[in-house]
Amino acid sequence: MVVKISQRLLAMPASPIRKLVPYALMAKKQGVKVYHLNIGDPDIKTPEVIIQSLKNWRINPIGYGQSQGQPELIEAVKWYYHRLGFNFIEEKNIQITSGGSEGISLAFFAVTNPGDEIITFEPLYTNYNSYAVFNGIKIVPVLTVAENGFHLPPKAKIEKKITKKTKAILICNPNNPTGTVYTKQEIEMLLGLAKKHRLFVISDEVYREFTYDGRRQISLFNYMKTMADQIIVIDSLSKRYSLCGARLGALVSLNQEVMAGALRIAQSRLSAGLIDQTIAAEIKKVPFSHFQKIKKEYQKRRDIIYSGLKKIPGVFIPKPEGAFYTIVTLPVDDAEDFCRWLLTDFRLNNETVMLAPANGFYATQGLGKNQVRLAYVINANDLKKSIKIIQKALAVYNKKIQN
Amino acid sequence: MVVKISQRLLAMPASPIRKLVPYALMAKKQGVKVYHLNIGDPDIKTPEVIIQSLKNWRINPIGYGQSQGQPELIEAVKWYYHRLGFNFIEEKNIQITSGGSEGISLAFFAVTNPGDEIITFEPLYTNYNSYAVFNGIKIVPVLTVAENGFHLPPKAKIEKKITKKTKAILICNPNNPTGTVYTKQEIEMLLGLAKKHRLFVISDEVYREFTYDGRRQISLFNYMKTMADQIIVIDSLSKRYSLCGARLGALVSLNQEVMAGALRIAQSRLSAGLIDQTIAAEIKKVPFSHFQKIKKEYQKRRDIIYSGLKKIPGVFIPKPEGAFYTIVTLPVDDAEDFCRWLLTDFRLNNETVMLAPANGFYATQGLGKNQVRLAYVINANDLKKSIKIIQKALAVYNKKIQN
Repeated sequence: MVVKISQRLLAMPASPIRKLVPYALMAKKQGVKVYHLNIGDPDIKTPEVIIQSLKNWRINPIGYGQSQGQPELIEAVKWYYHRLGFNFIEEKNIQITSGGSEGISLAFFAVTNPGDEIITFEPLYTNYNSYAVFNGIKIVPVLTVAENGFHLPPKAKIEKKITKKTKAILICNPNNPTGTVYTKQEIEMLLGLAKKHRLFVISDEVYREFTYDGRRQISLFNYMKTMADQIIVIDSLSKRYSLCGARLGALVSLNQEVMAGALRIAQSRLSAGLIDQTIAAEIKKVPFSHFQKIKKEYQKRRDIIYSGLKKIPGVFIPKPEGAFYTIVTLPVDDAEDFCRWLLTDFRLNNETVMLAPANGFYATQGLGKNQVRLAYVINANDLKKSIKIIQKALAVYNKKIQN
Repeated sequence: MVVKISQRLLAMPASPIRKLVPYALMAKKQGVKVYHLNIGDPDIKTPEVIIQSLKNWRINPIGYGQSQGQPELIEAVKWYYHRLGFNFIEEKNIQITSGGSEGISLAFFAVTNPGDEIITFEPLYTNYNSYAVFNGIKIVPVLTVAENGFHLPPKAKIEKKITKKTKAILICNPNNPTGTVYTKQEIEMLLGLAKKHRLFVISDEVYREFTYDGRRQISLFNYMKTMADQIIVIDSLSKRYSLCGARLGALVSLNQEVMAGALRIAQSRLSAGLIDQTIAAEIKKVPFSHFQKIKKEYQKRRDIIYSGLKKIPGVFIPKPEGAFYTIVTLPVDDAEDFCRWLLTDFRLNNETVMLAPANGFYATQGLGKNQVRLAYVINANDLKKSIKIIQKALAVYNKKIQN
């Protein structure tokens, strides 16, 4: 080529969730039913009051929104935090973002200069890697393992990773992709490190309500007043209200410099979507019992996935505590090959399953090769069929490999 | 503070279009009518067929879209390019973006490494500066001046700015903020430079249809087949269909590496808004005569602005050729102070005008101090009133300054 694209564009990783999509499309073209356990796109309906507000649309022209966010949405998000008991959150502490994704990128940009480091725990939400490339920084991963449900390693192991370049600790709680809900002790251990080493803590809490077996998420909002400068919470309406396609989230902090900077960045992209923001302001009319119903449904699915998969020989699945993901260890050497093969070759009653190879959920090359990430966002019946497909497929695949 | 925000966040400029918003809000609170000439948010209605598709909304849940864009929107955008005569554009050449803004950022990221340079012409679209900071690169501005309608300087002046770090020439045509429509000679001169020095050309063409007095925009699509690797077109539905709040644009290129990389970035932010994309796919039902009507309306407004302002003593306004902006030189030393004063102090029949100080539209510090950018996106009547307000205000302001 006459011109060269940038090194950083070449370094941008492909999405492990989406890179097998062409194979899934091919399978579908062949008339094969594909169960999507690869992506966290919930099947739970968007609350009717939000859909209704679309149908009653009155604004024309569809002009720009405010850069910080539409006042009615900021107010609604504030209302939600107050309902959770965090009455100290004011409008000025909320920057509406285009999904949690934009919030993450914004937070990375705000606390790091190029070459700086952010510590987080792997397996990790794969887009942390992408946003690290995008912002020219390094994700320094601390390994967590399936054997203890991907809970945090001892403090010393984390502290060892802190260098002069470390600017923040990033935690996703409840965790995507592991389904781990961190304990109060774990959270406070991290905050202790942040205090000692003067680091930001970025807390990705988009699955706040998704906790099972009576667990409660320990939100960093609980510590925001005492560590006002240091805490940035990333939030999203996507999962909570089944609004993934509305691309709405929030960056929340009491650090005024962070908020002022976030607004300047937000100005450069003008605004988040006006329609999305307008209809999402209706969340004030969605009762909190909505979360209870959803939680119950996901816990049921979690039970199906957990009890079903742990019975398959050679499969290891820790009991997921929250969110709607889990990292499952499979009796295969190359889970990516298995995932591809599921789409290209394997059918059970003309059906198959799409899984996400877990290698893309690690920042360390070579890890997660025998693991997949699985999202239980389809109904109980389809989940049961998916488990059968996985069980049968593993048997066939391993026989094929041995031959 | 215990922790420090990043240098790059501090370097992020505030929007010159939006930074006076608090003063406008104060004026409005006092019951003052403010005419907004500061922002290019058109008052022309969004086509009814698009609004209707909102009212007929059927999709629930509102899940993620495809990362490249919803197939029906990609198809509609392709259809639009084919209608323009560019039949060689295929789906794979189109990446749907969250507004033209995301397209610009993506293009910058794709063609530069940190520290690299992109040449463009100032006064410039202010967010080019923001996205340069965001991507850790340098905008190298070539000055254009009001006296010749902000047309390009001779080739040698541009070529002088090309260094080893130069990766692209960026042009906005028709131009925001100057209203200039570049001639074929100008465009081909730039392409000649790009060929000679092996540079990308990024062409921001979001105002493609907005050209007056029988002018036609010279789109880089005309040269795409012969310079396939080098040309990236940034596009947007915002102005063309009065969909600013829908946050939809496109990055278009025949360079497969650019497109593959753009998709990887797009995957990291999951998707553009599903609702916005779904309703925007209806653009196929909007007849091209829609653009003729709009163009006629804007040309009328352009005439009002041009003939009205050029009569004011000390004001210089080149005749705008396209888009709906113009850079106006005022008989004041500090246009930003004047713009602020308009909002805080000046009223004519309890009305005032909001303008954007032009200093923020230059990359070179200190330029544009006696200029404002003006967007003629309000109706003819209000435009006439705005001109009267500006005329009267200049007289009062300069009297005040002299005292």
